Amino acid sequence: MSLTIANARLDGERVGVRCADGTIAALGPDVAPEPGDEKLDAGGAHLLPPLVNGHTHAAMTLFRGSGGDLPLMPWLERKIWPVEAKLADEDVYWGARLACAEMLRSGTTRFWDMYWQPAATARAVSDAGVRATIGAPLFDLHGSPAQLREMAQRGLEALEGCGPRIEPALAPHAIYTVSEESLGWIGELSAERELPVHIHLSETEKEVQDCLAEHGERPAFYLDRLGLLSERTVLAHGVWLDPDELALIAERGATVVTNPVANMKLAVGGVFPHPAARSAGVAVGLGTDGAGSNDSLDLLSDVKTFALVQKHAAADPTAIAAAEAWAVATGARAPRLGATPLERGAPADFLLMRANSPELGIGELMADLVYAAAGAAIAHVVVGGEVLLRDGEVPELEEIVARAAERARGLGL
Amino acid sequence: MSLTIANARLDGERVGVRCADGTIAALGPDVAPEPGDEKLDAGGAHLLPPLVNGHTHAAMTLFRGSGGDLPLMPWLERKIWPVEAKLADEDVYWGARLACAEMLRSGTTRFWDMYWQPAATARAVSDAGVRATIGAPLFDLHGSPAQLREMAQRGLEALEGCGPRIEPALAPHAIYTVSEESLGWIGELSAERELPVHIHLSETEKEVQDCLAEHGERPAFYLDRLGLLSERTVLAHGVWLDPDELALIAERGATVVTNPVANMKLAVGGVFPHPAARSAGVAVGLGTDGAGSNDSLDLLSDVKTFALVQKHAAADPTAIAAAEAWAVATGARAPRLGATPLERGAPADFLLMRANSPELGIGELMADLVYAAAGAAIAHVVVGGEVLLRDGEVPELEEIVARAAERARGLGL
Repeated sequence: MSLTIANARLDGERVGVRCADGTIAALGPDVAPEPGDEKLDAGGAHLLPPLVNGHTHAAMTLFRGSGGDLPLMPWLERKIWPVEAKLADEDVYWGARLACAEMLRSGTTRFWDMYWQPAATARAVSDAGVRATIGAPLFDLHGSPAQLREMAQRGLEALEGCGPRIEPALAPHAIYTVSEESLGWIGELSAERELPVHIHLSETEKEVQDCLAEHGERPAFYLDRLGLLSERTVLAHGVWLDPDELALIAERGATVVTNPVANMKLAVGGVFPHPAARSAGVAVGLGTDGAGSNDSLDLLSDVKTFALVQKHAAADPTAIAAAEAWAVATGARAPRLGATPLERGAPADFLLMRANSPELGIGELMADLVYAAAGAAIAHVVVGGEVLLRDGEVPELEEIVARAAERARGLGL
Repeated sequence: MSLTIANARLDGERVGVRCADGTIAALGPDVAPEPGDEKLDAGGAHLLPPLVNGHTHAAMTLFRGSGGDLPLMPWLERKIWPVEAKLADEDVYWGARLACAEMLRSGTTRFWDMYWQPAATARAVSDAGVRATIGAPLFDLHGSPAQLREMAQRGLEALEGCGPRIEPALAPHAIYTVSEESLGWIGELSAERELPVHIHLSETEKEVQDCLAEHGERPAFYLDRLGLLSERTVLAHGVWLDPDELALIAERGATVVTNPVANMKLAVGGVFPHPAARSAGVAVGLGTDGAGSNDSLDLLSDVKTFALVQKHAAADPTAIAAAEAWAVATGARAPRLGATPLERGAPADFLLMRANSPELGIGELMADLVYAAAGAAIAHVVVGGEVLLRDGEVPELEEIVARAAERARGLGL
């Protein structure tokens, strides 16, 4: 399968792109199609890297709009946990299909997921054609370390052989829901099998205070002592990380994924200290968190909120520039998240955004992308050389929305 | 001209709407078309009030993406004022046409504008078919009160006879750019001719400190002493209003329009005290501010940011509920902004939003609208019984974008 795209625009120049065997076979001003290639005229659209959603719970699209503007604990206890207890594979599958469709429409082609029935999410990701790093959430707060190990093994087995677009991960929920013993075991397994670790860290101030009270050290130091802080680690949130923790995280090569919209919606009270993280050299990515607590999966919208809240928190409009916010959203500042460059030999994953859309026709491209563009500006999305969004349309969208809505109704949502 | 829409959804019920002579002639479950009516099947779409953008500078679409993430004064001095000095009518016209197109695509049908060449903006509004309250910005910082009066009179004359969709206003720029004498004169003229007054107030903390130092009172009290605080007054920003000012504003019946995105982007440091304004009984609306400092005109996006920043500032997820944020964005909490109800006899202005769009299919409608929906969910927009956006398309959009981009390039933007 091969595809040649003509008439795209990269850094102001007209270029073509040829995709073969899932990778970029040619990219430049003189690219010509070869016999048998599918052809696509980009009509002068901007060729851009896709966005990487560094932290989400994809199937929680089923819980969208049922949060009732509640605080975290009442929301979990009243709205989420009673329903999650009865989730079936097909619920997770259609919730995740809906999530993939929404992410494609807003320019995201890869995401980091932590949710129940990971094999159902993996099937949805494969059917949608996108990419994901997936882990079943691991807890032993109300169970034993032995049960957690079994859950972890079952989760990994379920994700075996899911194809090249699925990367399995270990996803311990948080330091306050997983025991010290289990965290240590997860660290060993991660090292032994080279598996990424995806964990919530330092989302609320209470988590930090509790960690200090219980372990005498702050969350990042606690994780490090248990062998869980490495270049394989992706820390979601990091709102309350202090300068010493940021320095340690940078030294270990771990990644922090900030989720500004979910943090503001749940009103955790703080803002991820991005300027300090940048100074410390921390790898940073951007996430939406789940649709239950955002309530969208639109990273193109959230990159604006990210830049805005950083400027606001610093009381300084120069605290972050558009190009930097964009780099964070595309995964360019966090290699472990799995973004790939727009160059020959790399996976053929990219966006084509209409240069003549109202929000992209005037001004600097980076500023327009971050502060003005919406998903409506995305003409085509290509993953592994396949056109997954064409002229703004996701195939089978109507069925996906209907099936997900039906599953949500079936769960009483 | 008459139009009958079938198969819409209002508060969960199937309804039809018949529009005649610009108003809603019938609304309910049993509305049938009359001979000669244009017919539109809404396909089960939600019938909703349109959004009201309470503060913008429409033609500043031309300045989008050229702010360079700068602070307010360097941005104005380096990027804005040198170009504004050479603006032609056609620049303002095409900039405002682009603004109207973007607002329609994101659900806004009425806006409050403050910008140069107001007649060109009025022409753009009329050609686009939307509604606006328009005022030329009035300054006498570098001129005389006599010159300001002449500017004001010229601005009002230019807006005479622009048709029923244009409301002229007096738009003194701010208390720090208009003299006490001129503010007093504007207050008298507003009372005499029943003209709305649209003014920036309390955007930065410095403005408040300067007002205290110069006049010995806070900005709202200063305006009130000059006769400028009435039910005709629309105050843009209000970030630093204190409880006494909020009580005074409520007593006078004036409106505050909060512009959360522009405030965060320019990093003014504070957040409009919405919970206190609500307790005081202040009429509150929502604005985007100009595309030069936002950089979009997408109020459907900004209503989410409004709710998020209020929750964040209060460190309380219950600080504002989705339904309240939506009411603010539609103008339902600020009668002077000109929103009209969805009922028989009212102007036929409304949105039809696809109930089967990915973000609207699951959960409570208000939460989905505020936290998840994007402009792509808007199927049709009707103003005065005319379909201005049909199946998501603005007529002549390609030409509007091209002409606005051409004008921006001509200005060296």
